[in-house]
Amino acid sequence: MFTKKDTVKAILRNSELNLKEMGSAFAPSNIALCKYWGKRDRELNLPINSSLSVSLADLGTATEIKLSDNHFDEVFLNNERVSPESRFYRRVIDFVDLIRPSNDLNLKILTFNSIPTAAGLASSASGFAALTMALNDFFGFKLSNEDMSVLARMGSGSASRSIYNGFVKWNKGSNENGLDSYAELIPTVWDELRIGIVEVTAEEKKVDSRNGMNQTVETSHLYESWPKQAADDLDKIEYAIREKDFELLGKTAEQNACSMHATMLSGFPPLIYWLPETVATIHKIHQLRSEGLPIYFTIDAGPNVKILFEESVEEVVKNQFSGIKIIKPF
Amino acid sequence: MFTKKDTVKAILRNSELNLKEMGSAFAPSNIALCKYWGKRDRELNLPINSSLSVSLADLGTATEIKLSDNHFDEVFLNNERVSPESRFYRRVIDFVDLIRPSNDLNLKILTFNSIPTAAGLASSASGFAALTMALNDFFGFKLSNEDMSVLARMGSGSASRSIYNGFVKWNKGSNENGLDSYAELIPTVWDELRIGIVEVTAEEKKVDSRNGMNQTVETSHLYESWPKQAADDLDKIEYAIREKDFELLGKTAEQNACSMHATMLSGFPPLIYWLPETVATIHKIHQLRSEGLPIYFTIDAGPNVKILFEESVEEVVKNQFSGIKIIKPF
Repeated sequence: MFTKKDTVKAILRNSELNLKEMGSAFAPSNIALCKYWGKRDRELNLPINSSLSVSLADLGTATEIKLSDNHFDEVFLNNERVSPESRFYRRVIDFVDLIRPSNDLNLKILTFNSIPTAAGLASSASGFAALTMALNDFFGFKLSNEDMSVLARMGSGSASRSIYNGFVKWNKGSNENGLDSYAELIPTVWDELRIGIVEVTAEEKKVDSRNGMNQTVETSHLYESWPKQAADDLDKIEYAIREKDFELLGKTAEQNACSMHATMLSGFPPLIYWLPETVATIHKIHQLRSEGLPIYFTIDAGPNVKILFEESVEEVVKNQFSGIKIIKPF
Repeated sequence: MFTKKDTVKAILRNSELNLKEMGSAFAPSNIALCKYWGKRDRELNLPINSSLSVSLADLGTATEIKLSDNHFDEVFLNNERVSPESRFYRRVIDFVDLIRPSNDLNLKILTFNSIPTAAGLASSASGFAALTMALNDFFGFKLSNEDMSVLARMGSGSASRSIYNGFVKWNKGSNENGLDSYAELIPTVWDELRIGIVEVTAEEKKVDSRNGMNQTVETSHLYESWPKQAADDLDKIEYAIREKDFELLGKTAEQNACSMHATMLSGFPPLIYWLPETVATIHKIHQLRSEGLPIYFTIDAGPNVKILFEESVEEVVKNQFSGIKIIKPF
């Protein structure tokens, strides 16, 4: 079996350590238009299906890394020291341990999130992507984006996509070692595209994505049909991006997201990330669409709704959904 | 192709007309523990999967039939005359037209529902079952329950199950003519079983079950996995009834219902019968169960939630869900 350590060894085999005084990076959050849901390898975070996302401009994670003045690793989140007892600290340091060339290098890691943690806004995606890029910068490894995508993937699957800005496709790959499972940029710019975030709650969810997808794969019968649907949806979305066919993009993304939530719902116990306000928002979107407004939605493994639309209807959307946060991805 | 008329001819071939002054019948509403979702024949209402339900005691439909004093058919619903322009009138009379031996027999049909119409409480099931039984009584056909189940099925699929009280299994059958697609009684009595109805709304739903299931079959990829799951669930539920294994009954019914809703959700446009209060009720049930209360739920093609539990926790359930209507099926 290929381990995380083996992966790091393969990626870093030609890299030299060139320690800088400080390493830093920003990685954007991303929203999948074709979702990642289900792993074929839990150790390496290798996905059952390929996925495709769009980044969220300046929403994301900025990370700075220096040497620690103490004999231990320090982690700060939004300027607050993170307890070494916490799950957050453990995940960060376990990841750093994979990559740091020597245990003598104790680090001070400063992380700034411009998004609420664990509210279905993929902060672990931008978090591990920024951490990977900042580590690469700090250690002076000069890794390619593809290599950083492989590394970030081991922290959190969708982090593989947050290495880039714009439309990003994560190829599931077929090798057992996962070295072909990384994300690539789709170099299309879609100026008119907008994403409106309807934040239903900023509370941490009870079941994280990792456990959620494992539970689904283990207990849902309907999940059997998911990989085929995801593959079809990915093709449609790539085509829609190429042709700037907004209706096709919106329809496919909405059906893909709902199908992912359907696989969760069909497991046991039924996994329902939605809250009452989520359903109210969906019904409102459907109502407005039936009245002719071209808006669609997607929902990650959480309760918040992301509305997809184009610039031309931005004012209408803003008026209909109070408190909506509108993102211009390009 | 075998038509509805052919079915009636086959069923009535040995029956004689013995007109009574009045025909009457009561049929209970039923709640499927293993859902009917998807047709293999839309004309005859032949299902893709077998299903299993429990009847709702005195919630249902009482129907009386006499000759009309006028030269036209009259329909009354809860003592109010139903307009011949309405969809309700049309469905009733189309069904009567199939069965009545002569067009000279104009009928006065009085229907009394003890449940809200079209609120996901299967009033069309008890409605067509009561209509079939009342017609059989009025015309003096002396049909068997199985034959009445076949006839009622053509009015509304789940009406095939409302011919009986108690646990009922509707065998999907395999013949193209549908004559082997009828419901049978499972003669188990489960005294302790309770069903609590949490009525979220009594409003009519926007998409009826008929259109809902057709849309699902046509547009959901995940639906492909449904027939196999329904078959497995049916076996488990039959076993649970035989063994009075409440936990198995509850778990399986809950997963089956959620899987049906998952198939709807995965079509396009996503079909969501749930309202915000539906989701709030589900989360509350899950919360209480995690605290040790053995309750499960099922939801038909509508927003209302039916809680499954046993007598021993009736007081707790009553206190937790204000306004709940508790049914003792046996």
